[in-house]
Amino acid sequence: MSKSLNHVGVAVQSIEAALPYWRDSLGLQLLEIREVPSERVKVAFLDAGQTHIELLEATADDSPIARFIERRGEGVHHLCFDAPDIHGSMACMRAGGARLLDETPRAVGGGKAAAFIHPKSGNGVLVELYADAPPTD
Amino acid sequence: MSKSLNHVGVAVQSIEAALPYWRDSLGLQLLEIREVPSERVKVAFLDAGQTHIELLEATADDSPIARFIERRGEGVHHLCFDAPDIHGSMACMRAGGARLLDETPRAVGGGKAAAFIHPKSGNGVLVELYADAPPTD
Repeated sequence: MSKSLNHVGVAVQSIEAALPYWRDSLGLQLLEIREVPSERVKVAFLDAGQTHIELLEATADDSPIARFIERRGEGVHHLCFDAPDIHGSMACMRAGGARLLDETPRAVGGGKAAAFIHPKSGNGVLVELYADAPPTD
Repeated sequence: MSKSLNHVGVAVQSIEAALPYWRDSLGLQLLEIREVPSERVKVAFLDAGQTHIELLEATADDSPIARFIERRGEGVHHLCFDAPDIHGSMACMRAGGARLLDETPRAVGGGKAAAFIHPKSGNGVLVELYADAPPTD
């Protein structure tokens, strides 16, 4: 079974300034805006069929999103794939020689866990694997 | 109704060199590889749930993909959304002040038409609107 694309993360300077394009002009339905304090970002999720567009705005100068925009400008930040067996997926990527940014899945709130793969391994694309967090690990 | 993400285009130096990552390590099913001579690219489509990952390899030095990689390196090249009423969608984006790269939808083969929106309008993201081509236009 292939993996599903859960969402596309897009780094933006300001969600408020970006919504007229993504919601009003392009016509994607806004689902939710919330803060993720651990990542120092505010995120807006927009419906794009069976996947989402996630607009990411830094809430602090040392946020990974602030650093990304400083280096590369606004744009696509990462692709996130559902990986129900996240440990198996990580092992498979390691076996293929990919450089993982997380040794073990990190808790990302909402009962979810994630692991990131370095963009150097994936043709310049930062990939996130995403799964339900195990009860204990 | 929100628009669906049809595919994410990723510019790569070589599809052959990229497949071990996207297909074998990440585990996306390879659906099709074909050439699009009009765009001077070879494309590989991989299944990612209700959307696709489209790996794009230049087949000529003056291919838009070759120029993109020269400027930015490998990475996400564009996001493509289904826009059944492509003329209405283009009008809506124009009304919102977006800069369109196509005055009218261009034929892209397979009975499909597309229009691109400049990344400067969309937070650094090149957006493609995608629809069935009208019988005559």
